[in-house]
Amino acid sequence: MASPDRMTSRISEFDLIARIRARVAARDDVRVGIGDDAALTAPPPGRWLAIAMDTLNVGVHFPDDTAAADIGWKALAVNLSDLAAMGAEPAWCTLSLSLPNAEAAWLDGFLDGFLELASRHRVALIGGDTTRGPLSICVAVHGFVDPQGALRRDAARVGDDVWVTGTLGDAAAALHEWRAGGARSEALRARLDRPTPRVAAGRALGGLAHACIDLSDGLLADLGHVCRASRVGTEIALTHLPLSSTLSIAHPPALTQRWQTAGGDDYELCFTAPRTARLAIEDAMSVCDTPATRIGRIVAGSGEVVVRDAEGELWTPTEQGYSHFVE
Amino acid sequence: MASPDRMTSRISEFDLIARIRARVAARDDVRVGIGDDAALTAPPPGRWLAIAMDTLNVGVHFPDDTAAADIGWKALAVNLSDLAAMGAEPAWCTLSLSLPNAEAAWLDGFLDGFLELASRHRVALIGGDTTRGPLSICVAVHGFVDPQGALRRDAARVGDDVWVTGTLGDAAAALHEWRAGGARSEALRARLDRPTPRVAAGRALGGLAHACIDLSDGLLADLGHVCRASRVGTEIALTHLPLSSTLSIAHPPALTQRWQTAGGDDYELCFTAPRTARLAIEDAMSVCDTPATRIGRIVAGSGEVVVRDAEGELWTPTEQGYSHFVE
Repeated sequence: MASPDRMTSRISEFDLIARIRARVAARDDVRVGIGDDAALTAPPPGRWLAIAMDTLNVGVHFPDDTAAADIGWKALAVNLSDLAAMGAEPAWCTLSLSLPNAEAAWLDGFLDGFLELASRHRVALIGGDTTRGPLSICVAVHGFVDPQGALRRDAARVGDDVWVTGTLGDAAAALHEWRAGGARSEALRARLDRPTPRVAAGRALGGLAHACIDLSDGLLADLGHVCRASRVGTEIALTHLPLSSTLSIAHPPALTQRWQTAGGDDYELCFTAPRTARLAIEDAMSVCDTPATRIGRIVAGSGEVVVRDAEGELWTPTEQGYSHFVE
Repeated sequence: MASPDRMTSRISEFDLIARIRARVAARDDVRVGIGDDAALTAPPPGRWLAIAMDTLNVGVHFPDDTAAADIGWKALAVNLSDLAAMGAEPAWCTLSLSLPNAEAAWLDGFLDGFLELASRHRVALIGGDTTRGPLSICVAVHGFVDPQGALRRDAARVGDDVWVTGTLGDAAAALHEWRAGGARSEALRARLDRPTPRVAAGRALGGLAHACIDLSDGLLADLGHVCRASRVGTEIALTHLPLSSTLSIAHPPALTQRWQTAGGDDYELCFTAPRTARLAIEDAMSVCDTPATRIGRIVAGSGEVVVRDAEGELWTPTEQGYSHFVE
């Protein structure tokens, strides 16, 4: 850990930028990186550019006891997850940090998490800014996608299977445990603090899947976006929803089912694909070491998301997902 | 103005995004805009992509009585100013809005200013997010620049003239008047709230100017960045610094000189160019209706910025510019 001296070390804005710049990795397609008015990059010919931007605010998007390194990881992860949902290959990112004060140790920790994830996906940090203000982290990411391989929300078709990667509900369970203040599982908390953006899976699904979305607001809410955009409906089998063994042991089904369907922050991919692609999808997911489960199918409709229980009866969720402004 | 009903109208996050989406202009090179996990765009072949990102926080970057429309304008303007400083042609932007609450009238006002400026420069708003939090606006902008026309901070050469566009110090004067709480000039306040990004001038300078920077932190501080990056020094003539008639009438020279040299928020361009380009630069600035003034020259050195008064004596500034974290 940082020495007491470093913990209280305040640094100027210019030193702060220099501290970031010193740790940033290079990429051949970055012509001018941090340190000018704008970054200059050379996009590859013939590919589209995927651009996403997401902000994390303290107390809204992460508990206030979250470690700096985890905040750094998550700020980039939620953005890479958006690129994954488009089937894009990540390339560059910019970072805007609003900090109540500029502590060297906090910044170093933040960069540890942020740059560790950036390095795994060969993402170069090319610019941004630092300002004084309540803790807030805004990240924009840029990636490349072949025009024929882009995954969109509005491409689901009647008869498609509905799939999800990984397991559902762990992050919501961790948030519940944190709020309740009782026993807490470190494994669940890691899922909340260090989500895994499914970048390799998203890229592998280009040309195989029809529609795709990443699960940030909860399965039912996010599937609702896909169904409305695609002008279809969907039927989901409650018992098919993937569940981690940690979660199944730690909490009763009444809670785990609520978190699997309506909990946010999973950052798994939910995608639809024709039945004929089942084997190809299983192969592709196996190659990139990403579990994927069929959880239902796309039906005719206009945005309806229906969940059926083990007996085939309609199951009514207790919440419909997460919206920042609805209290 | 908005009716009392609209003033207190709270809207959900999804309605808020729908409200933004309904007002956004199209561009042929935007393949997928607002409403998916990421935007998809088709960059033009053979050009570089310029990417900048800047955040505005209430109380730090604008007075807390600033009108919503002016905040919207300024949030985009400071970013377009960064593209201008690279000589880039603006194309797309993303917007992350953190709002303490979601009021329809505030959002509509914000969009009035933001989209008015976007429309003038044919910039398409292609994505971003809305979150709950203290008022903060993060914008990322993307533009195109020819590799041989890109303006950088590190390209100033000994013997270059130093130029600035427009006039200096008005925005700092407005901030001073606002803080002092006495008589206030609307013309000065407009320069603080609605800066003019010098986009046409920046593009016209590609191939003519050597180095360029936009003036956000104050002339001396920003020229210092150019000189350190270029490993040169500069000598500036205090009496050559352009001054608006409004400012010269409203305040005494001791104050105006301080604001011209150390005040922030002007968003004029400061650039260096060889003496042989003087006529071409005057022609180019005339074509894009942007006043430009020669204020000094680049000399051998290692980052020194020297100011001389009317008698040629060294003039010592009282402040060196603005840094968010130095109090």
